[in-house]
Amino acid sequence: MLSIEKYQDAFITYLEEYAILNEPRGLYEPIDYILSLGGKRLRPVLTLMAADIFNGHYQSALNAALSIEVFHNFSLVHDDIMDDAPLRRGQTTVHEKWDINTGILSGDAMLIMAYQLFEYYDAATFQALAKLFSKTALEVCEGQQYDVDFETRNDVTIPEYLKMIEYKTAVLVGAAMKMGAIVANASDKDQHSIYEFGKNLGIAFQLQDDYLDAFGDPKTFGKQVGGDIIENKKTYLYLKALEFSNETDKVELSELFASNPEDVVTKIEVAKQFFVSSGSAQATKEAIENYTNKAFRVLESLHISEDKKDILKTFGNNLMNRTV
Amino acid sequence: MLSIEKYQDAFITYLEEYAILNEPRGLYEPIDYILSLGGKRLRPVLTLMAADIFNGHYQSALNAALSIEVFHNFSLVHDDIMDDAPLRRGQTTVHEKWDINTGILSGDAMLIMAYQLFEYYDAATFQALAKLFSKTALEVCEGQQYDVDFETRNDVTIPEYLKMIEYKTAVLVGAAMKMGAIVANASDKDQHSIYEFGKNLGIAFQLQDDYLDAFGDPKTFGKQVGGDIIENKKTYLYLKALEFSNETDKVELSELFASNPEDVVTKIEVAKQFFVSSGSAQATKEAIENYTNKAFRVLESLHISEDKKDILKTFGNNLMNRTV
Repeated sequence: MLSIEKYQDAFITYLEEYAILNEPRGLYEPIDYILSLGGKRLRPVLTLMAADIFNGHYQSALNAALSIEVFHNFSLVHDDIMDDAPLRRGQTTVHEKWDINTGILSGDAMLIMAYQLFEYYDAATFQALAKLFSKTALEVCEGQQYDVDFETRNDVTIPEYLKMIEYKTAVLVGAAMKMGAIVANASDKDQHSIYEFGKNLGIAFQLQDDYLDAFGDPKTFGKQVGGDIIENKKTYLYLKALEFSNETDKVELSELFASNPEDVVTKIEVAKQFFVSSGSAQATKEAIENYTNKAFRVLESLHISEDKKDILKTFGNNLMNRTV
Repeated sequence: MLSIEKYQDAFITYLEEYAILNEPRGLYEPIDYILSLGGKRLRPVLTLMAADIFNGHYQSALNAALSIEVFHNFSLVHDDIMDDAPLRRGQTTVHEKWDINTGILSGDAMLIMAYQLFEYYDAATFQALAKLFSKTALEVCEGQQYDVDFETRNDVTIPEYLKMIEYKTAVLVGAAMKMGAIVANASDKDQHSIYEFGKNLGIAFQLQDDYLDAFGDPKTFGKQVGGDIIENKKTYLYLKALEFSNETDKVELSELFASNPEDVVTKIEVAKQFFVSSGSAQATKEAIENYTNKAFRVLESLHISEDKKDILKTFGNNLMNRTV
């Protein structure tokens, strides 16, 4: 097993070799661009780690890891068009740097290229990887659609919200790890367990993202604190606050999250007071802990050494403390 | 072997069973919509035919045929966004009926679903189909990008144009047939030959489309005659006319294809005169015949009965006479 940094290095070296010099440049240049923007490369690192965890060699999982990263970046390119986002990782988004049509077409090519990266594996492994990939990719699309649907719905339930974040972000974390397990020929049971570990950790991470948006430290959070509140996003914090509120507070909170005041500082403060006084902030913290613990409990059932379980646990803790 | 109509019927019955009732409806309803708009279903019919040609059973090729049709419709949804097209097969396009974001996301889901349809096959067949599919799909993206690039270029060569139409439309016809051959376990050589047959017929068909746009019968062509001329599309007819013209005519023709006059009837007439007098119309007819003959010559090398070769030849002739 390597350290996270070493896996990151190995992946980035491999990614740099992948640079697509094919023609037409109008199609492939935006792909090179988005793939080179950086980020922590956590998903591919998880694929490499999982391969080593199950006594494979991380080197043999590099193409699967790259596939996950190419897919993730495909989804960023298309999501950024849909969200009309000007920036991604502090740089101009693809559809802003080029145009929407380029974003659509280069994104499409990336989705196909993600599948092509499985061609380096034998037929049985290829099929296992591609099946998992298709199922996951379709769930990511469904999660994105639920997210869009929720913007105009006022009756979103907590289970619906949890399903949305599971599909939109958590299943890809689970799939990234399961791919490493598939390449390493882990048992079906272990493949399932590592998927559940990644998925539950992914849900915990996303819930924590909701929490930190309101209560995070502006110095370390990376995004604008209060951004979700300004944008009236119906996060876990908001939905739980609604659930816990009496009728009067429900109306007031709903109205707050239908408003677009100039004074965002006050809006954020009022929302945070609702989150705390209703018990939603506390409930969200508990939900984060529950999903993290659920992930860690799954580890117990894995047929791997205690050392390796500790590595996964340390990774999970570092992720939740946002030090990786 | 069945008649074309019987293959169409078998495919449409299968397609109707495929209707996706999954949630979220916002994602899947547009997919049902575009798949039900009709069309001649020529690509999937070719997959079914090819399976029977190589002594497979067309029934076993239904999922591969459906994959081809789902992919083709994916490309229509995304292309219609890029072209800002209001109508498709006389009906509202997906992005017009819903919105651009829906068109992007439902299209993405269709591309994934096309891969999922290969999961019905054993691992070796799955890999063969998915590899061919990825290669073809990426070429279709490249062809689309070349088409976009050509709009703003004034130095497009005939070989570049031929590569563009090969990638954008012809390789999918070849791949549709090769998939039938793969499912039927045809030899590598026969798989290659049927691909070449489909691809060359596809190029001939597209060149004929260019020709008929100027010289077709408005009653039977289906599209507006002269549409390419009005839109200043650099078709084979135009590029060949440029090649065959002296400097004076070159300038005049280039200027005509940079103009957007009110009087389109005169513009079309002038363009057609250029096409005829330069010898481009004749050269285009010859190119169509050359690619058709190239397709038919490939048939000779196939290890199938003469009866079956005749069926493919009849199909090719009917396609070029536009009676199927």
